[in-house]
Amino acid sequence: MRVSVLGGDGYCGWATALYLSNKGHDVAIVDNFVRRQWDLDLGVQTLTPIRSLDERLKVWKNLTGRTIDTFIGDMTDYSFVAAHIREFEPDAVIHFAEQRAAPYSMIDREHAVFTQVNNVVGTLNLLFALREFRRDCHLVKLGTMGEYGTPNIDIEEGYITIEHNGRSDRLPFPKQPGSFYHLSKVHDSHNIAFCCKIWGLRATDLNQGVVYGTVTDETAMDEALINRFDYDEVFGTALNRFCIEAAVGHPITVYGKGGQTRGFLDIRDTIRCVEIACLNPAESSEFRVFNQFTEQFSVLDLAQMVDVAGRKLGLKPEIDHLPDPRVEAEAHYYNAKHSRLVDLGLEPHLLSDSLIDSMIGIAIKYRDRVDTSVLMPSVNWRNATNRLRAPMAASLITSGA
Amino acid sequence: MRVSVLGGDGYCGWATALYLSNKGHDVAIVDNFVRRQWDLDLGVQTLTPIRSLDERLKVWKNLTGRTIDTFIGDMTDYSFVAAHIREFEPDAVIHFAEQRAAPYSMIDREHAVFTQVNNVVGTLNLLFALREFRRDCHLVKLGTMGEYGTPNIDIEEGYITIEHNGRSDRLPFPKQPGSFYHLSKVHDSHNIAFCCKIWGLRATDLNQGVVYGTVTDETAMDEALINRFDYDEVFGTALNRFCIEAAVGHPITVYGKGGQTRGFLDIRDTIRCVEIACLNPAESSEFRVFNQFTEQFSVLDLAQMVDVAGRKLGLKPEIDHLPDPRVEAEAHYYNAKHSRLVDLGLEPHLLSDSLIDSMIGIAIKYRDRVDTSVLMPSVNWRNATNRLRAPMAASLITSGA
Repeated sequence: MRVSVLGGDGYCGWATALYLSNKGHDVAIVDNFVRRQWDLDLGVQTLTPIRSLDERLKVWKNLTGRTIDTFIGDMTDYSFVAAHIREFEPDAVIHFAEQRAAPYSMIDREHAVFTQVNNVVGTLNLLFALREFRRDCHLVKLGTMGEYGTPNIDIEEGYITIEHNGRSDRLPFPKQPGSFYHLSKVHDSHNIAFCCKIWGLRATDLNQGVVYGTVTDETAMDEALINRFDYDEVFGTALNRFCIEAAVGHPITVYGKGGQTRGFLDIRDTIRCVEIACLNPAESSEFRVFNQFTEQFSVLDLAQMVDVAGRKLGLKPEIDHLPDPRVEAEAHYYNAKHSRLVDLGLEPHLLSDSLIDSMIGIAIKYRDRVDTSVLMPSVNWRNATNRLRAPMAASLITSGA
Repeated sequence: MRVSVLGGDGYCGWATALYLSNKGHDVAIVDNFVRRQWDLDLGVQTLTPIRSLDERLKVWKNLTGRTIDTFIGDMTDYSFVAAHIREFEPDAVIHFAEQRAAPYSMIDREHAVFTQVNNVVGTLNLLFALREFRRDCHLVKLGTMGEYGTPNIDIEEGYITIEHNGRSDRLPFPKQPGSFYHLSKVHDSHNIAFCCKIWGLRATDLNQGVVYGTVTDETAMDEALINRFDYDEVFGTALNRFCIEAAVGHPITVYGKGGQTRGFLDIRDTIRCVEIACLNPAESSEFRVFNQFTEQFSVLDLAQMVDVAGRKLGLKPEIDHLPDPRVEAEAHYYNAKHSRLVDLGLEPHLLSDSLIDSMIGIAIKYRDRVDTSVLMPSVNWRNATNRLRAPMAASLITSGA
């Protein structure tokens, strides 16, 4: 299968590209390296020393004999997107190429507008390019479980049958996203559903939970293939940050009560879910939604698991409850369905002590790269303008759109 | 009350600005005249000879002694939006300033992207400006009944209580918009709801039906105050087009079977609904939704009403069924609630023979301005690129965003 991985130099994209290449698919990576630029702009870096894409791919070729094509450009540039689709002729396009951090989108107006324009226009460009040049190609789009918010009813996979005043219809599940980033994903979902309807495109929206883990079989083949490990307050997820905090003796920074419950999955399941979606494509005109996570945890659950694992390793973690910088329920009902990918063959890697051990181990290994000044939250949802520690270059705002 | 009317040089905006000014409110019009530019770009014009805003406002001042302030600029320019809010200090902002035609958004990729970026960024800018400089100001946002699509259940006003697996929650009504334009309004609604939640803003989303009628008490005071009457395939609504077609002896152009049912209202009710919303503002943190229409009709209902009215006037209309250029159900269930504005005092002007007579009368009066070449549909939802009759200037795409 010919597969384009948009955003293939990023965290999920890189692991996915190698996995699919290793499985024998013809893979292309499409990227503009803006994720690396944002690190520079914000004065942060991944814990792990990632190499340039060029170096990564040379090592991959040497190790496996397999070539991954690259297309370097911006999804908001239609001529680039169209040229890629025409030239590479993918059977499936896996679309990770979006600004994906909620705190980034909440820094200020410029970052909110950038996130929405970048993500929405990139996806619109892709939809038009598929319509024009590759109508049968399967779009596998990364959405997020955060599109649903935290309703007081069970969350279904994309659609819900509503009985109302004696009538019934299967309708899109109502969305209550919690950041300008999550909103951009809701906008995308509506746009994609519409294009499947009017043009007969086929799309799978993978509403992914929070991904953890760094190591996959492929990235483990060589240090030069190492994946990102983001832990800063803007791009880092809670579990990554907690592992770093435990490793360096910083209090574990739980926001509020920590009852915020979300879906989580191992990056090894991310890449398998994407493969499953590709191997079982949506029908023409179908817009289907899979909830892509394997377990639910509250933030406090994670902190306590890191605490236990840390103590076993001889560390002395301390859990701290900070005022929640986000506007969100700190305790709520949460029960989200996630059976469709399992029905298609997913065998989950559940979050285990040994996985947390290994994450803390990586944190200890690269401890001298940790910058503890980027752990505490400085982006507050209640403010229209937030000042980060480092001065931000104006370039990041205009670089993508 | 100090009221900003964003898009106050347009069809609904102009009628609203005069009405509120006549009621004694301090009104400002914010506009960049891009609506007039689109007419030039597409080679179409309003049936009625509208005057420049400057001339309109001078006549208004002479007739009533009342001044309407003007702020000329683009909503996608944040510095302009912020300066307007700071300088004018509105108590209510009525936001009509969006690209509002479904066919326009469906012309091609450029028009789709322009519509979504223009509308979404303009509204985001407004939300940030209100947060920064006028947090208590009431945002009255024009949405559209088209956000809901045509579900097989009753449409509620913005929210629906869903019982599911033994639990219950009041959630946003699921949206199934039918064009890139309608999608932009759904994106706006999600963005506004979120900003009310995180910043305590107050907003009313008026999900308006299709507006008909040209004459209001204020615009009738002088020929120089005449409002727009759009009848072309891109900006004209079905009823306007049908009246023109009856007047000039062109077949009445029903798309498909004509069973497409929508909500409609008289422009005199639009301006009253907006007034009602302003006089009864939303609470802080509240995002409320009113369905703003007074009657439901199918497209074929309208064609038949025009046919009957035309015959009484001695015309010989003929109803023609064209292949539907849109992707939509040509027959479907439709029952949308619309009681909240009536509960607050709206007394509807229902669509009557005499109103249709008067619309056909206007069509006859300005018959020599009718261009029959702009009546037939040339924008087909199934195409990614449509060619209109007139060559389009590239300027329209970049003028706003």
